[in-house]
This record gives sequence, C-alpha cells and structure tokens, in this order.
Amino acid sequence: MSGGDLSVVYGIGELVVGPGEDDSDGPLEIREDAAFAAVDGEVVAVASSEAITREYPPENAATAIDADGRAVVPGFVDPHTHAVFAGDRSDEFAAKLGGAEYREILAEGGGILRTVRAVREAGDDRLVASLAGHLETMLAHGTTTAEVKSGYGLDTETELRLLAAIDRADARQPVDLVPTFMGAHAVPERVDAEAYVDEVIGEQLPAVAEQGIAAFCDVFCEEGVFGVDQSRRVLEAGRERGLEPKIHAEEFTRLGGAELAAELGAVSADHLLCATDEDVDALVESGVVPVLLPGTAFGLGEGYADARAFLEAGAPVALATDFNPNCHSRSMEFVQTLGAVEMGLTPAEALLAATRNAALALGLEDGTGTLREGAPADAVVLEAPSYVHVAYRLDTSAVEAVLKSGEVVYE
Amino acid sequence: MSGGDLSVVYGIGELVVGPGEDDSDGPLEIREDAAFAAVDGEVVAVASSEAITREYPPENAATAIDADGRAVVPGFVDPHTHAVFAGDRSDEFAAKLGGAEYREILAEGGGILRTVRAVREAGDDRLVASLAGHLETMLAHGTTTAEVKSGYGLDTETELRLLAAIDRADARQPVDLVPTFMGAHAVPERVDAEAYVDEVIGEQLPAVAEQGIAAFCDVFCEEGVFGVDQSRRVLEAGRERGLEPKIHAEEFTRLGGAELAAELGAVSADHLLCATDEDVDALVESGVVPVLLPGTAFGLGEGYADARAFLEAGAPVALATDFNPNCHSRSMEFVQTLGAVEMGLTPAEALLAATRNAALALGLEDGTGTLREGAPADAVVLEAPSYVHVAYRLDTSAVEAVLKSGEVVYE
Ligand SMILES: [Zn+2]
Ligand SMILES: [Zn+2]
Repeated sequence: MSGGDLSVVYGIGELVVGPGEDDSDGPLEIREDAAFAAVDGEVVAVASSEAITREYPPENAATAIDADGRAVVPGFVDPHTHAVFAGDRSDEFAAKLGGAEYREILAEGGGILRTVRAVREAGDDRLVASLAGHLETMLAHGTTTAEVKSGYGLDTETELRLLAAIDRADARQPVDLVPTFMGAHAVPERVDAEAYVDEVIGEQLPAVAEQGIAAFCDVFCEEGVFGVDQSRRVLEAGRERGLEPKIHAEEFTRLGGAELAAELGAVSADHLLCATDEDVDALVESGVVPVLLPGTAFGLGEGYADARAFLEAGAPVALATDFNPNCHSRSMEFVQTLGAVEMGLTPAEALLAATRNAALALGLEDGTGTLREGAPADAVVLEAPSYVHVAYRLDTSAVEAVLKSGEVVYE
Repeated sequence: MSGGDLSVVYGIGELVVGPGEDDSDGPLEIREDAAFAAVDGEVVAVASSEAITREYPPENAATAIDADGRAVVPGFVDPHTHAVFAGDRSDEFAAKLGGAEYREILAEGGGILRTVRAVREAGDDRLVASLAGHLETMLAHGTTTAEVKSGYGLDTETELRLLAAIDRADARQPVDLVPTFMGAHAVPERVDAEAYVDEVIGEQLPAVAEQGIAAFCDVFCEEGVFGVDQSRRVLEAGRERGLEPKIHAEEFTRLGGAELAAELGAVSADHLLCATDEDVDALVESGVVPVLLPGTAFGLGEGYADARAFLEAGAPVALATDFNPNCHSRSMEFVQTLGAVEMGLTPAEALLAATRNAALALGLEDGTGTLREGAPADAVVLEAPSYVHVAYRLDTSAVEAVLKSGEVVYE
C-alpha cells in the first residue's frame, strides 16, 4: 500500500463502527482493540489493531494516530442549524430571565426580524467569517458535517447572499456543509403570509434553484407563521425545483406539519414537541427522520419531545443543536448529554442519533455517521476510554482530536 | 511606574467590577470603556481606559492586553468540588439511563465506595496528575480559585494523601486551591457511622490539623449517612482544630443540616434542595453562605434548590459545580447557564454567584471574585461584548483568555 493518502488510526480501546447490526449489539456496533485504515479520505478496512497495522503499516501513512486505548467514534453530524446570521441577541436572553415577555421583546424590535435587519446590513465577508468562527467551535466539539439554513434574509437578494456565504464557508474550513433554503422562516414586516409565500415560490425559489446552492427547502409550519397549506405550497414548489422538503413541525402547537411531512415524504420533520402518537406512526411509515432539538427546549424551558415514543415506533431518531441567536448551542456533545439526561436516551442511543441517524436526516446514505468500509473517514478521538464520556461529561468536551476525510483537522 | 510586575488590561467594552454598590447598579457594578492596572498580582487601579493607559502605559507593563471592546469579568470561584479522585464511573451513568436502580449499582460495588477503592489503589503521582488535568479544564472555563474536598479516602492515611495531592496540585498549576477535609463523606464498609465518626474525630482530624493542610471541615449530613448529632460532633471537633465548618445539607431529605449550619455559624451550607423557609431565614440571620449545585440536580434529574427564595431573603447565593464522579461538571460557565435557565437567576445574579459570593463561601474577604482595588488580579477576558454571553452560550465557552494574579495563564 503506498502512502501519501493513507490514514491509519490504531490502538483504539473502543471503536464505535456504526449502528448495531443485530439485537445482540444494541444500538451500536462496538469493537475493542480495533483500528481502521482510510485511503483518499474513505474507510477501506476496519479490523483488529493487530491486523490493520500489519496490512497498513502506520509508518507508511500520511496520517497515523495511536489512540492508546482511547475511544473513537464517527464524526458528529449536526442536521439542523441556523448558523449563518449577524448581530447579538444575548440581551433578549437576559431580558427574558429578568421577566420580560416575548411580546415586549418583539415590541421593542427584538426576535427573528432583528436578526434579519442585522443580516441585511452585514457585508458578505462578515457573514462568512462569522459562520466560519461558529464552525470552528462546532468542529472542536466533534461536528464534521453540518446542515446550515438560510432564512434571515427574507428577500431574494439576502437569501441568495446567505446561501452564498454557506458555500464560501464550506470551502474554507473542514466541516462539510449541507445548505438548506428557508426563505419561509418568518413573515417579514409589512407583508402578509400569503403574499410572502407567493414571493418565496415565485421569486426566491427560482433564483436559488438557478444558482444550485441549496439541497433542501424548509418551512416554519406554526400557528401565526406559515399554515399547513402554505407550507405544502412552499415544499411542493421546492421539490419541483429539485430541493427536497424538510419542515419545522409541531413545536409550540400541533398544527399538522408532521402529517404534511408524512404526506410529502419529507427527508425530516424537526422539533415535534407536540407530535401525537398518530404523527409518530405516520412519520415512521413514510420514512421521515424525526430530528429532535433538545437545546431549544433546554434554553427556552419548553419541555422536550418524546424521544422514547419515536424509538419504540422504530424511528431513526436524530438530534441536532438548532443553533440560532435564540438558542446559542453549538456542541453536538452537549446535545447528547441533553438527550441522555433530559430525554432518557441511553448514551448509545444519543450517539447514534448524533451520527448515522443525523446523516439520514440529511439524506446522506454514503456511510456518513459510521466508520464502516466505504464511509468518509470522519472520526472523533475521545480523551476517554469509552464513548459514554460524550454524554457523561455534562459541560466539558471529551474530544481529543477530530479527523475529516482521514486528515487531522482539530487536536 | 516601573515594570516587571505591572499588568494592564485596557479597551474593555464592559468591565464587571464586582457586586453593585447601590440600588441603581443592580447585582453588578459595570463600567464601560474601562481598564484596570495591577502590580504584583493585585489590582491597584480601575478607571476609564484613557485614564489607566495614561497613568500605566501598556508599553511599560509585563502583561498588557487590549481587550478591544470585549467584556472582562472577575475570575470564577468554584466553592464546592470533589475533584481529586481516581477511577471511571461513566458506566454507572449509562446504567442509570438504561434503567438500573441506584441500589443495583451499589450492590454491584458501584457508588462512592468504588471511588474509594480506586483512590486507595492509585499512586500519589496519579492523583496529582488527575487533579491537575481537571484544573486545566476548569481554568479554560474561567475558574481561577477552586475548593477541593478530600473524602474518597475514609481512612487517615488516604485522607492525608488526598490533602497532600491537593497541596501538590495547587503548587504546580495556576488555579488557587482551597482544601477541605471531608473524612465524613461516607461511611466506609464494615464500620458503623458512630464508630466511624469516632475515628474521624479521634484519628483523622488530629492528623490533618497537625499537617496544617486543610482550611475547612465538611460533613455529608443526610439520612443514611451522618445524622445531625454526628455532623455536629465532627464540625465542632474540626473547629477546635482550626478547621471552619461547611456542610452538605438538605439534599435528598430535610434532616436539619441547615439549622445546624446556622447554629454553628458555618461558612457555607451546600445543596439545600429541601431547605424550608425557616432554614432560609436561619441561614441568612447567621451569615451562612448558601452554595447551590445545579449541575448535580441537572445530571441526576433531582430538581433544583429555590435560589429565588434565598435571594429574596437577602442571602449571597453562591453557585458551584460539585464536580465528582457522579456529576461530571467542571465548567463554572455552564453552572451559570443552569442558574439562569433552570433556576431563574438573571445572568448578572448568576455571575455574582460564581464570583464574589462564591469567594464568600470560602471565607475569602480579600476582594477575590471582584476586580476592585486591592483584589487579586484574577480576570476572564470574554470573546464577547457582554458578560451575558457566559450564561447565554448554553454549551460552548465564552472564555478568550484568563489572568491569574495579573498573568495570562490561559488563552
Ligand atoms: Zn430551526
Ligand atoms: Zn459535595
């Protein structure tokens, strides 16, 4: 085996390969005293440390890591973020804790539309730099792939600028980005929802599709934002333009967004705090991945989605940060802690939700979120002997090093 | 002003000086466009950036930091940790989430006594290295002073070894340590509580006092551990030996530990989840600092102490991590987030609880936890324009750099 593009990680005390293959595995397939080799950024072999180092000598590898008994897990996938924005809304967090009501904050010009104003005023370079800064922190907590939504532009020009910023940030740092167009994130000032939906469908979507800079189309289906019929119009129009549907559904009220996701066969339905048993079954039957966002629930004191109901129905539950100015969460490690402590997932279920299942929520079926043969060699070396430390450490990182496509990109 | 020992931090957008001095301040005294100077590690002047840089030119300083509009706050004080231990109990965290009951875990040899066995087997160097590693992480999250308790030895030799490890770790890294003797942390195997209290008082305390390596004496006053009379005996014996009392009180049951703390005029009473209104008043009247431990409540799903009741009664509420193998929390930033999100403190109240009030819980009345004249120049430069970001960032650090005694010890 010749060398410049060979990566070998050996001496792994506990290697999380991917989801369990049979009942005896439980949620995860785990190998002890293991190693993997990758060529050109793709896993080519997973076996015992002895077998791998014999077939792929570390001294021939461009990247060779002796994990020295530590645990190694697949790189985390964050399948729901609003990470490209401008401005600072920490004062609203303080105001809410000081007793201000959301309506007062809105009346003083706060909330999403404040971020929209800040984004419209920010230069392109500032948007890219801000996003890249956030991605650096996310990477340090183990995230190697992240979805990023537009949606703080709310007009064609600014939505395109946001998607272009995602594209530029993708190119200049290691975290792989999956761009989602979310013109239907909020209703802008001085427009009614119906007229704005017409604009999203008639102007924004065609422009986005023409530039080919979004993979998904998302909509905030919620009382007082976009109704079910409006959401259906947006998502069907997106699909006609080649953007597969995602949906913010059943967060504050049970409006019917989950049913719509099932009807359309959306890639994912996200939030789902108010989903009923029927919603759970409908989503499972149509193969829609439920993406649960415990950071939002934690930060806003909302209560949590019923993760166990989804698992019992056989759904591939995914977790995400929902990072946005109203939920300053960037760590997929902490999301797993919340999944365990607040939602009753086991650390294994939480890890699967942050890796393979999160990849499914982005339609990634190339092995992303696993370390199986053929998968991208995206991996996290933990400074701990077991993957359990990711959830167990309530508030500090368990990440020692991160590999993206077989290269060390954080340590 | 000559130079080798001068430190100047200027260009501070928002400087948290300390507790508010009058009603118009609120919980915190905050100055904008500010700076401070320190000589030999002690703050000598706090004023406008212009005035400080005129009187103490940064070019003459051994340490000069242009905060460039960022916020600067006093270094955090963590007044309750069990940070010196050995072994790994992450598997118990996983077992509990998988449905195991605490009794099963105990029956399989888990719990505190498992850590005691691991500590007794660990070499001194390993104890020191482990503690120093934890302190490095705590420092990265802004902690500049921390209390550390013994209590995983439960015999004279091992308790002395733990206190000696705290002393050695104190000397070899920047975080100032305050050592607490807690021989009465649990009842060891094959001994009854009464006989063990006799040993703590008759053997352990005299040996600890002779070596002069502890500032406080603590006891776990709880049903099934040490009763109120046993706790009183331990704490009075400690005080006779020069160790001021602290107490773990009213965590799972209301046993009377808070009343005892008030009776003895303890430095602090900690946990207090089950404290009554009468307990709150008694603690305030006797000047006992309430130390609340939201990480434990979060990790164990316990519910939270009533911080608001203490604040309304005029208590200087302090927050701490309670870092121990059963509560893997090391970040005083996250503790402030929990104080805000879960206990309803404002970010200002949470910051005061993590700085000046936490210092009071350690009897430190030299200005520690403030950046007033005469105080140690322990400070955190935030990568944000406001102290609010400490609590606002749910799961990632807002720390850009940390100064201890005027020197940059983390960046
Ligand atoms: Zn969202
Ligand atoms: Zn404790």
